[in-house]
Amino acid sequence: MNDASRTYSPEETGAFVETFAIEPMAEGPLTGLRFAVKDLIDIKGHKTSCGNPTWRDTHPEAAANAVCVDQLLWAGAECLGKTVTDELAFGLDGENHFYGTPLNPKAPDRVPGGSSSGSASAVACGLADFALGTDTGGSVRVPASNCGIFGLRPSHGFVSVAGVNPFAPTFDTVGILAGTCETLIRAASVLLSCEVPDTAETGTIHLVEEAFTLCDREVKMALAQPVEALKHIFRGTVEPTSITEVVGERADKPLQKWYETYCKVQWAEIWSCLGGWVETAQPKFGPRVKVNFELTRILNRGEVQAAVRRREGYYRRLSGFMSSNDLLCLPTAPSVAPLKGSLGMDRTACDYYPRALSMTSIAGIGRLPQVTLPVAEVNGIPIGLSLLGAHGSDAFLLAAARRLLRATPPLLEK
Amino acid sequence: MNDASRTYSPEETGAFVETFAIEPMAEGPLTGLRFAVKDLIDIKGHKTSCGNPTWRDTHPEAAANAVCVDQLLWAGAECLGKTVTDELAFGLDGENHFYGTPLNPKAPDRVPGGSSSGSASAVACGLADFALGTDTGGSVRVPASNCGIFGLRPSHGFVSVAGVNPFAPTFDTVGILAGTCETLIRAASVLLSCEVPDTAETGTIHLVEEAFTLCDREVKMALAQPVEALKHIFRGTVEPTSITEVVGERADKPLQKWYETYCKVQWAEIWSCLGGWVETAQPKFGPRVKVNFELTRILNRGEVQAAVRRREGYYRRLSGFMSSNDLLCLPTAPSVAPLKGSLGMDRTACDYYPRALSMTSIAGIGRLPQVTLPVAEVNGIPIGLSLLGAHGSDAFLLAAARRLLRATPPLLEK
Repeated sequence: MNDASRTYSPEETGAFVETFAIEPMAEGPLTGLRFAVKDLIDIKGHKTSCGNPTWRDTHPEAAANAVCVDQLLWAGAECLGKTVTDELAFGLDGENHFYGTPLNPKAPDRVPGGSSSGSASAVACGLADFALGTDTGGSVRVPASNCGIFGLRPSHGFVSVAGVNPFAPTFDTVGILAGTCETLIRAASVLLSCEVPDTAETGTIHLVEEAFTLCDREVKMALAQPVEALKHIFRGTVEPTSITEVVGERADKPLQKWYETYCKVQWAEIWSCLGGWVETAQPKFGPRVKVNFELTRILNRGEVQAAVRRREGYYRRLSGFMSSNDLLCLPTAPSVAPLKGSLGMDRTACDYYPRALSMTSIAGIGRLPQVTLPVAEVNGIPIGLSLLGAHGSDAFLLAAARRLLRATPPLLEK
Repeated sequence: MNDASRTYSPEETGAFVETFAIEPMAEGPLTGLRFAVKDLIDIKGHKTSCGNPTWRDTHPEAAANAVCVDQLLWAGAECLGKTVTDELAFGLDGENHFYGTPLNPKAPDRVPGGSSSGSASAVACGLADFALGTDTGGSVRVPASNCGIFGLRPSHGFVSVAGVNPFAPTFDTVGILAGTCETLIRAASVLLSCEVPDTAETGTIHLVEEAFTLCDREVKMALAQPVEALKHIFRGTVEPTSITEVVGERADKPLQKWYETYCKVQWAEIWSCLGGWVETAQPKFGPRVKVNFELTRILNRGEVQAAVRRREGYYRRLSGFMSSNDLLCLPTAPSVAPLKGSLGMDRTACDYYPRALSMTSIAGIGRLPQVTLPVAEVNGIPIGLSLLGAHGSDAFLLAAARRLLRATPPLLEK
């Protein structure tokens, strides 16, 4: 399915809401790179649709760039356009009822993943060197995994979200999708204002047992070789770890409580952020997003405090467990990209969303940075392997990813 | 000036935008406590004015409580009303052109401080046991200091800001103002979902030299006795420290670069968050706030990346320097509350704002929690002493504050 030499026009990909050319404001470390911006992030003089026509119609054009966009333009990068997002960022699939489904060039019959769907598609199709996305519960990591590219969810609170539409602020981050690890590192070095070391002397790398249990058998098999490479390169420091034991709980359905905890906090925050607009503007939503917002509206808010308490408990146990040079390793997603149109209307009733969010919630709950690496395929369809670092260790995490990739060039040949 | 036995009606204080009684949703750890909410934080069914009539007129009523409000109601507290804020939270003075200046009962001829002016006034006047405020650049800490009460700015990212109007998200926090340290701890334990230990075994407590240099001589003198008490209680661990040296810079005007760094990032974020509304709604602002927004609009955004770089550099040096049980100690504000009407129109031209923000920016830039304690007075006018902990050490910081206060009862007798 995948023809790496193929070139695409923006129109063919369906990745863009709008294309243009905003020149760099200065020469800098990103000179020569072109980036796209998820249409949840403000660009001066343009409307931010957040993937929903009613939102677009009920909000003025942006008076300023989001701070993250300005950082990139002043560092020498050129901005190419705005990319399709799941409505209000509420989805991991990338099937937008109004704006369509951006092309997953590695698997055209499958979804690109969302909510940073167009950003992933634009990068995977070679139209942009990197793209800005947002990641609340996996919206950079999952599309990066689905489309076979690199993705970073930074530590919460380290990349400015000013000018980015709030969704669930406790978990909201601005992340990066990129075609190569070095491009990811260049863009991240600007947004995080850090220097990424040439290599990383890691402590223990924990293979999160529950996440490997949760993913499809074929995903686990496809990741076996990269995991072996990891063990070889970081000799003697890679070991299986039960995250359930780390946080001092007894085994349940793997990561079930992480999933429930994440959803309750997220849904409460979504309705607090967007409920006023929903009730006032009475927006048209696609059918799946309509169901999603109804879940946030009817949430029993008496359950929120228990979820916050569990979240902070998990966070503290995990922080206490991980040294600043330790890493976690897990599959980025439970499966390769689902077939288009295969996901049901109710996210809680299907199998994909609960499994995916169970795995992605670790970074959100733990306030951890996560990088996903396109190091495996299942029958030619990409699947990512993720490394997570301690809170605030983004530069170190990226250095570890660089070390892994540099030592195993075959991982890059797909 | 201060008559501790005096009781006030809400009207006399000018602290409230609106009073009501929202009953607790359940029994819990806050049963029996009554709280007020800064009018920048959503309460279901009410409009959030953000201290500005145009904002009020251009936004719908809230469809849900902010998550932090729900946390308190479900933990047993009763909500009394919404309190006056500086417009859009843009100020440290508490003189709102439209909603007036809430009473500072300890110094009626002086400002209460802002932007959580009404929250501080309501607590200081004994109308609420505690109140929610927001603190971006000092908006909880400064009014708590001015009004002689306790205040907490939590670690960034640990109390939900969902349903709280974004201002400068990199620095925005929801904080607490309270009449006693134990009430502060009870409310914080709910919002942060943590248990505050009975006491704290601290490492080194660093007296931040530059902050003591920056404050008025009379403030330094007034704080000498509490600082001596600190040295006595935490014997052998309290020492003067130059924060300029910690971050590896050469001395300039004390904390001048911290101030400039903070302002550039904050102003860029404010305009990214609110510029679209300002340009579309063409709001009426009070004269001082009008000047403030103009500063954010005309900011040279080419300077933002250098400010972000310096901020992250300061953060990393400070994180590396502080152990998890170390504290910083500094005056909360450079002076007691200014006289009403004494502050000029241009915040950058006056003396008060640059000095205050220089001191408050340490917590913002460092992502550190800060608690201010009403342990001193200058001629009967309150001034706070602050303790700051490492990022995420909020429970430990509060335990250290408790230990200090418990060991020195005279500090509480004012």
